[in-house]
Amino acid sequence: MSRSEPILIGIDLGGTNVRAGAVSPQGELLNWSETLIEARRGPQAGVERIAALVNTVAAGRQILAIGIGATGPIDRERGAIQNPYTLPTWEDVDILGPLSQRFGVPAILENDADAAALGEWWRGAGQGVKRLAMVTVGTGIGYALVLDGKIYRGTGGWHPEGGHMRLDPNGPLCYCGGNGCWESLAAGPAIARDLQAAARQQPTRMLDLAGGVIEKIDAAVMAEAARLGDALALEWTARLGKIYGLGVANIILLVLPDSIVLGGGVMRSFDLFEASMRATAAQTVPIVPAGQVKILAAQLGQQAGVLGAARAALDLYQEKGHHD
Amino acid sequence: MSRSEPILIGIDLGGTNVRAGAVSPQGELLNWSETLIEARRGPQAGVERIAALVNTVAAGRQILAIGIGATGPIDRERGAIQNPYTLPTWEDVDILGPLSQRFGVPAILENDADAAALGEWWRGAGQGVKRLAMVTVGTGIGYALVLDGKIYRGTGGWHPEGGHMRLDPNGPLCYCGGNGCWESLAAGPAIARDLQAAARQQPTRMLDLAGGVIEKIDAAVMAEAARLGDALALEWTARLGKIYGLGVANIILLVLPDSIVLGGGVMRSFDLFEASMRATAAQTVPIVPAGQVKILAAQLGQQAGVLGAARAALDLYQEKGHHD
Repeated sequence: MSRSEPILIGIDLGGTNVRAGAVSPQGELLNWSETLIEARRGPQAGVERIAALVNTVAAGRQILAIGIGATGPIDRERGAIQNPYTLPTWEDVDILGPLSQRFGVPAILENDADAAALGEWWRGAGQGVKRLAMVTVGTGIGYALVLDGKIYRGTGGWHPEGGHMRLDPNGPLCYCGGNGCWESLAAGPAIARDLQAAARQQPTRMLDLAGGVIEKIDAAVMAEAARLGDALALEWTARLGKIYGLGVANIILLVLPDSIVLGGGVMRSFDLFEASMRATAAQTVPIVPAGQVKILAAQLGQQAGVLGAARAALDLYQEKGHHD
Repeated sequence: MSRSEPILIGIDLGGTNVRAGAVSPQGELLNWSETLIEARRGPQAGVERIAALVNTVAAGRQILAIGIGATGPIDRERGAIQNPYTLPTWEDVDILGPLSQRFGVPAILENDADAAALGEWWRGAGQGVKRLAMVTVGTGIGYALVLDGKIYRGTGGWHPEGGHMRLDPNGPLCYCGGNGCWESLAAGPAIARDLQAAARQQPTRMLDLAGGVIEKIDAAVMAEAARLGDALALEWTARLGKIYGLGVANIILLVLPDSIVLGGGVMRSFDLFEASMRATAAQTVPIVPAGQVKILAAQLGQQAGVLGAARAALDLYQEKGHHD
């Protein structure tokens, strides 16, 4: 590809970092950069920082369109960030207007889970499948569907939040308002909470790996200890695998996608959860062809959001092209 | 509408009865008839019986196409019934071929839950919405999605079975292979099982209404007793409402449809479950706009399947028209 061929810009805006990539219309990531967002400095400083990042990765090439995948809540229609929770001071911040104006191109805003799913559909583990479900397990559990290559949107254009599906009526109360939702049982903070409680009851190498500080035991420590054969860590990876399997089973039962892709920080240890997750999901085989649904680890890591945002930008550009 | 205007035929094939309707292209049910299927007499006798029913309701009008909604498992692609469970001896029975040939029109086979959902979308409680989920609570819990006016199909064209979503890891084991699935907790047989166990423990008017025979206590008896103010029956309608609410909440979280329509025999008492069902579903409001999702009782009763099958026939006819 020649240096002068026009590009899409994909931006992944998280609570801590913002990443941008220059992506060819064929989905090659040509250039990539990341910086701290430092949201507390205010949205205007943030937009400046993002614009600088766009200039860095574009490196003088013609930009066709800009896509942003942002940590929600967002207002897609208005192109505004509504997230004072993980982006302090960012409430009702028009992010598309300034970027679109500055670079003279159309821009589109998506939920970060939707962008990651679109990225994995375009260039990753779910490449080209007709029905893709993506689950990201990290600080929360994100969920998105891509049907026929388009992000599936619920009523009013809103984003479904499958990560909060209810799995156990006797489970812990979540901020979502429900007891025993998937996130309350198996996202990063829930894992740390339960591991720390368990480590208070019985000896485990997790404590050594956490430098003797129980409060530092988390999913990453568990994974490390499990690979060293620690009994408690292995018990928990199996137990968590079952919970991931229950969630996967419900996605199979309700949506029956071709593939379910699992990503996010916790799923870097996909292999540790895999056996018990698959066994739990397979229990539903008599009812639906669960064996035909592929359960896969995400392939793109942190690039999924950037590539998906770039794909959303490409779709926007082509859509505009048809109408202009 | 003149008597000579052509019609669609919609057929609802259940384990006990088969119903057929003559339906106008605008969705008016012009004529309707029903008979016992007596599946044990064999598939050939069954097809004869269905053909006779078609002649009865068509009453000489021109037929454009025939749609059948049948109790599953079915093989849609091959137009075959694969159901020795509720249609004894009906295994790998080509139902479309003989009917299509006899009447010289195209014919299509759908799962009965899909047909009912399409019926409610066309002429019932979910009329015209972009994203409809339908749940039928009877002997089992059926589930179907209609997106953009089309039945949603999962991987390989298969039908998702949301009625078996897992809601309680400590719940009873279902024939689906999972513990605590929706159907195992709240379909007709589960309700009867739990009510009968409860009636053995404490006095209830349900026992009188069942003629003193505990084994005759079921969902219908519960509804009658609840309307008479029986404490145990009211306790159970509230408890079941919560379980329906959990399932509804998960549909909202995973699919976020515009409307969720609840039908089937047990849902004739929709009003008795409504308060606790809505309260449980509403717990998820902070995460998704659950309040915007309409939760509605089905409107078409037993006609939903016939109308939906007729609609599938209409779509097939129009599709063929485009290609011919």
